Amino acid sequence: MIETLVKKIKETQAPIVVGLDPNLNFVPEYIKEKAFKEAGESLEGAALAFKEYNKGIIDSIADLVPAVKPQIAMYEQLGIPGMEVFEWTVDYAHKKGLVVIGDIKRGDIGSTSEMYAVGHIGKTKIGNNLIPAFDEDIVTVNPYLGSDGVLPFVKVCEAEKKGIFVLVKTSNPSSGEFQDRVIDGRALYEHVAEKVVEWGQSTIDPETGYSEVGAVVGATYPEQGKILRKLMPKAYILVPGYGAQGGKGSDLAYFFNDDGLGAIVNSSRGIIAAYKQEQYAKCGEEGYAEASRLAVLDMKEDLRQAIENR
Amino acid sequence: MIETLVKKIKETQAPIVVGLDPNLNFVPEYIKEKAFKEAGESLEGAALAFKEYNKGIIDSIADLVPAVKPQIAMYEQLGIPGMEVFEWTVDYAHKKGLVVIGDIKRGDIGSTSEMYAVGHIGKTKIGNNLIPAFDEDIVTVNPYLGSDGVLPFVKVCEAEKKGIFVLVKTSNPSSGEFQDRVIDGRALYEHVAEKVVEWGQSTIDPETGYSEVGAVVGATYPEQGKILRKLMPKAYILVPGYGAQGGKGSDLAYFFNDDGLGAIVNSSRGIIAAYKQEQYAKCGEEGYAEASRLAVLDMKEDLRQAIENR
Repeated sequence: MIETLVKKIKETQAPIVVGLDPNLNFVPEYIKEKAFKEAGESLEGAALAFKEYNKGIIDSIADLVPAVKPQIAMYEQLGIPGMEVFEWTVDYAHKKGLVVIGDIKRGDIGSTSEMYAVGHIGKTKIGNNLIPAFDEDIVTVNPYLGSDGVLPFVKVCEAEKKGIFVLVKTSNPSSGEFQDRVIDGRALYEHVAEKVVEWGQSTIDPETGYSEVGAVVGATYPEQGKILRKLMPKAYILVPGYGAQGGKGSDLAYFFNDDGLGAIVNSSRGIIAAYKQEQYAKCGEEGYAEASRLAVLDMKEDLRQAIENR
Repeated sequence: MIETLVKKIKETQAPIVVGLDPNLNFVPEYIKEKAFKEAGESLEGAALAFKEYNKGIIDSIADLVPAVKPQIAMYEQLGIPGMEVFEWTVDYAHKKGLVVIGDIKRGDIGSTSEMYAVGHIGKTKIGNNLIPAFDEDIVTVNPYLGSDGVLPFVKVCEAEKKGIFVLVKTSNPSSGEFQDRVIDGRALYEHVAEKVVEWGQSTIDPETGYSEVGAVVGATYPEQGKILRKLMPKAYILVPGYGAQGGKGSDLAYFFNDDGLGAIVNSSRGIIAAYKQEQYAKCGEEGYAEASRLAVLDMKEDLRQAIENR
C-alpha cells in the first residue's frame, strides 16, 4: 500500500490526509434537520447525518488528496448505525480512488491483535471463504504491548500489501507523560521508533524505499519529529495535530525527508469544519464542502512553502 | 459499578470473569453447520454461530460468576454482523444479571477518548436525547497516550458510575519490551500504576473502598502482580492469562488483598472451549456449555485454595 500512497502523494503534490472525524457540532444544521426528520434524534439519525456530511466532503476533496483518515471512535459512539457509516465511508472513499487510513489505534496480545488485523486490513477465514470485513488500506496501531501485539499486523501487511502506522509520539498535551520518559539515555518514543524500524524491515517496498510500517508523530512536537525522522528513515510518518491542535506548516518541514517525501499530514476539523472559520465563512453552511476544498488548497500551499523554505 | 462487582463477587464466591472470546475453532460443529446453513459461510453466518455459542455459555454460567468479558476484536473481525453480536452479547449478559467488561483496550487523544468513553460506558448526546450505544459496564483502556487519553474515561465513570481497567502489565510474552523498561529506578508499569492510583482518587466507592479505576495485570507475571497489588491498594486488578496462557491459581494468590478481594481473574478458552480438554471431553460437543460450567467450578476451587494457602 505504501507504493500506492507515495504514487498518489506525488500525483496530487499534496502530502495531506483529510481526517473524516464527523461530529454533530460540525455537521451543518440543514443536514442534521433532514436526517433527524428521516430517522429521528437517534443513533440512526446521527449516523445518517454523518453519512451525508462525509459524502459531501469526499466528493469535494477526492481529486486533491491521496488519502482520508476516518477516526473510528466518532462512528463507534453511535453504535451499530455508526459502524455501518464507518464501513460505508471506507467503501465510498475507495470508489473515489482514495487510500483509506483507519484511525483505530488497536493493539492487544498476539492472538487478539491478529483478529483486529484481519478484520481491518486482511480477510477473515470462514469455512472455505476469505472475507474482508472493514477493509481499510492502512490502520494505526498502539505499541504498548510490545512486538507480539504488533507483529500480527505486520504479517497481514506482508500478505495483503497493506500498511500500519505505529503510535510513536502522539500529538496530545500529555503524550510526554510516558512517551518522553528516559530509559538508558533515550526517550521511550525513541525506543519505540527503533522497534518500528525493526518491525518494518520485511515490508520495504523496492520501488519507493519506504516500509509498510510507518509511525505516528504529532505535529505539535517538531523537535522530536526532527529526531524521529532521522531514526526511522524508511518509515512514512503520519502527522496529526496540524491546524486545530496547534501545529503549523513551518513546524513540519523536518518531518519530511530530503526528497520531499516521508510524511503525510492529517487535518481533520481544520478541513471538514472549515466553513466555521472566519476565513471560509463566505461559503456558508450550504457550502461546507466547498469550504473544505479551499482549506485543502490552502494547506497544500502552506506545506509546499514549509518544505521549500527549510 | 465497582460496588456492584464486589457485591456479586461476594455473592458468588467466585472472583472470576468468563472471557467471551468466540472463535470458529471453538464453536461446536453442529452450531456452525446450522448457522452456515441459515446464513452461509459468510460474516453473517459466523456471527450467527457466535451468538448461539455465547448464548449457551451465558445460560450455563450466569449463576456462578459475577461477570463476563467479551473481547471486541473477536466480533470486530466479522464486521457489522460481528458488532451486532457483540451488542447482543452485552445485552443478553445484562439480562442474565452479569456485569459486562468490554475488553476494548481503547485510548486516544482527549477529544477522541471521550467518544470511545461515551460510546461504550456512557451516553451519546443527539439533539435533546442521551442514548447509550454499546453500553458495557466497565471497559479496558490503553494508557500509552497519558492522562489526557484516560481522564475522559474517568469523567464518564464519575457521571455514570461505570468503571475502567487500565493496562498496566499485560499478560503477553513481549509485554516487558516497553512496560518493564526502567525509568528513574522503577519499571514503566510501576509509573503507570502510580497514575492509576491518581486517576482513581475521585471515584473511590465508600462502601467497598475500591476505585472505579482498576488495572490489568497478567497472571503470567506473579512477581510483578505482588508489587503492583501493594502499589495500588484501592484498584481492582483484572487478571488475564490464567489457564491457556500459562497462569496457575497458585501464581495468583498475591494479586488479592488480605480481605480476599481486589482481583478478578479472567479465563477465556479455558472455560468456553473446555469441552476440547481431555478433562471435560466426556461432555462432548453438544455438552460444550455444561463443560464450561464444570470448568468454572474447577477454577473457583483452584482460586479458593490458592487464596487460602498463601
